[in-house]
Amino acid sequence: MIIVNGGVTVPKGFLASGIRAGIKKSGNPDLALLYSETPAVAAGVFTTNAFKASPVELSIANLRNKTHRAIVVNSGNANCANGRQGDADALAMAGYIAEGLALGRSEILVASTGIIGHRLPVKKIEMKTTELIAGLSAKGGSDLAVAIMTTDTVKKEIAVKVKLGGKVVKIGGAAKGGGMLHPLMKKAGRSAGMIVDKHATMLGFITTDVLISKAMLEGALAEAADESFNMISVDGDMSTNDSLFIMANGLAGNKKITRTGKDYKVFLEALRGLCITLAKMLAGDGAGETKLVEIKVLGAKTDESARIIARKISTSNLLKCALFGEDPNWGRVAASAGSAGVDFDPGNTDIYLGPAKVLSGGSSMKTFDKEKVRKYIKGKEVFIKVDLKSGKGSATAWTCDFLKEYVTINSEYST
Amino acid sequence: MIIVNGGVTVPKGFLASGIRAGIKKSGNPDLALLYSETPAVAAGVFTTNAFKASPVELSIANLRNKTHRAIVVNSGNANCANGRQGDADALAMAGYIAEGLALGRSEILVASTGIIGHRLPVKKIEMKTTELIAGLSAKGGSDLAVAIMTTDTVKKEIAVKVKLGGKVVKIGGAAKGGGMLHPLMKKAGRSAGMIVDKHATMLGFITTDVLISKAMLEGALAEAADESFNMISVDGDMSTNDSLFIMANGLAGNKKITRTGKDYKVFLEALRGLCITLAKMLAGDGAGETKLVEIKVLGAKTDESARIIARKISTSNLLKCALFGEDPNWGRVAASAGSAGVDFDPGNTDIYLGPAKVLSGGSSMKTFDKEKVRKYIKGKEVFIKVDLKSGKGSATAWTCDFLKEYVTINSEYST
Repeated sequence: MIIVNGGVTVPKGFLASGIRAGIKKSGNPDLALLYSETPAVAAGVFTTNAFKASPVELSIANLRNKTHRAIVVNSGNANCANGRQGDADALAMAGYIAEGLALGRSEILVASTGIIGHRLPVKKIEMKTTELIAGLSAKGGSDLAVAIMTTDTVKKEIAVKVKLGGKVVKIGGAAKGGGMLHPLMKKAGRSAGMIVDKHATMLGFITTDVLISKAMLEGALAEAADESFNMISVDGDMSTNDSLFIMANGLAGNKKITRTGKDYKVFLEALRGLCITLAKMLAGDGAGETKLVEIKVLGAKTDESARIIARKISTSNLLKCALFGEDPNWGRVAASAGSAGVDFDPGNTDIYLGPAKVLSGGSSMKTFDKEKVRKYIKGKEVFIKVDLKSGKGSATAWTCDFLKEYVTINSEYST
Repeated sequence: MIIVNGGVTVPKGFLASGIRAGIKKSGNPDLALLYSETPAVAAGVFTTNAFKASPVELSIANLRNKTHRAIVVNSGNANCANGRQGDADALAMAGYIAEGLALGRSEILVASTGIIGHRLPVKKIEMKTTELIAGLSAKGGSDLAVAIMTTDTVKKEIAVKVKLGGKVVKIGGAAKGGGMLHPLMKKAGRSAGMIVDKHATMLGFITTDVLISKAMLEGALAEAADESFNMISVDGDMSTNDSLFIMANGLAGNKKITRTGKDYKVFLEALRGLCITLAKMLAGDGAGETKLVEIKVLGAKTDESARIIARKISTSNLLKCALFGEDPNWGRVAASAGSAGVDFDPGNTDIYLGPAKVLSGGSSMKTFDKEKVRKYIKGKEVFIKVDLKSGKGSATAWTCDFLKEYVTINSEYST
């Protein structure tokens, strides 16, 4: 996997645009369009929140279509908790694009992010549809990455390439994180728009020119999301709008991937790498946050129990305050791990804070170099390792420290 | 139930003291003793954290004794993650009191709160034991309430009285909350020191002169804790040290309570009332917090599902930031409820913010008086109601808003 410059318009045949539609009070870009020049297979994983925004419901329904051509997304308004009006507005948003591009409405996927319970200003979107479509460009990936931002301080995009049977396959991605970030996105069920299981405001858009079956694409996305976006947390709150999409248009010309063979593995590995990189960008740029914190749990009985513990530690407010304060208060790691509801032996547990072992067999180390650790946690990246020494299960989660500004930023959102 | 002045020394036969032992760097009181002049039956519920502090393990073991006489507690050091040394130190702490009062060591219960992973300064405690015992007084309840404080800004104590068959029965209580507050305390198993189930730094000490069997006292404490201390959250982190104790010495002279009859119900109701009042004091005085927020969920399929949702909402960082900002961003209530992992119909859900219905049948109300709500949430108490309209299950949880100072306070704890 080689990282290349750019984002969602790096793979062949993808165009994007991002413009100002006046949805955000700030006047910043807030409407974007992603377009495949040829029909693409698509997949999505979505918030498992019981309250799902109208665009999420619509995209889940539309994903039953065999192929797709475009994704339209707005920031500044979540179009959530707006009842039937919200559903009608999401449908209208897809309709404007379908009409403008002469496509079927079900070939369009939609996403929204922003405040809950305010009607989506569809007239503004309708009026800007021509400009949005006219702006589609093979250099538009960055415009899309900017237009989806809310409390993000920087845009997040990345592209990679791999070789499959001599053919170069590219994957591009853009994502936004910010305030309400604690995704747990799952594939929607195929029957009657039902959601198969549980929980995650992040939006992610991935494009690839790989030739792959829809079923294999769905599996790859779910697996990559579980080890990346579903393992980041900024503040433990799960949004009503989290959505991660992937479109694959097959223009790379590789031998079509239809089963879990070698090509699939190479593709999945690249997709996973891209997702982890984007997810870490999100975790490192939560609203007002600075340090990227990586939490690795190993020696668990199963990967799932490691995942639960890693994710629990990643949501410890007190740990995140301590890291902001650059205070090596590792006791908060132990307390958080122990509260995950997973059975393990504390008396056999080791904890490492960066270069230092701070807990050994459940007992605090008296001898570690406190000054070294204190210096270590002043860095921009902090690595915490918890070794349960009772199995082969492992998982990695990412979060950030809490800045003083966290409360200020998040206390003035709707006003 | 009538509320009376005082705390743990209001019931007959209980003495308390609280002194400075130099465990806290601040020099504030940090060592307390609670004593019953006659043998009392005792019960306790403890943190369900896998990492349990040594004093928790010791108290669980000692509660197998039939009767108890004293509880010794220190603040400023949690005596957690100190391995066998920690266990020996907790035992030594109990031993000093047992020797000083000429009691058996297993008649003593112990509790600690403070930083994790630092050895308990037992020499300081040993040197102060004589002073601590000499200070025991029927007016010492308040001294105990002060000596157990950590980041609390005020002491928390309360006492109530009820009549059982013509006899006046009194119950007194003191508690401390502060930083790491998200209890889920359960009764420890009777076999081999094993913990029956799961999660809870709060300390609580309840005294009563009621005459009751140990088994009935255990049941009453567990039930009262589930609807009070186990329903408060300051920051979602669960401590390694949470402990709630009750001692009943029978000096009220009532007919002994040995089954769930009328007297038991009257006693339980009073105990529950006392626990809820203390729990709300803790929630309203989390480290640096100001508003008390009450979250009531009703119309759930079961009380348990209502409890899970109420507790999930009470841990929403974003909601708590919005409340600090006095921003009626009720969408965060909906998002949090929906993320609890409980199956309910969002399209049938109503949400009330104080006097106003803000969500009706899953759709935002366009007509509520925003100025009225804005004024309402400037108050010191905020009431949020979520009606799922699909059953008779209900539960109430309490939390507080996040102050800007939250991060500052919690980022400088160990340094």
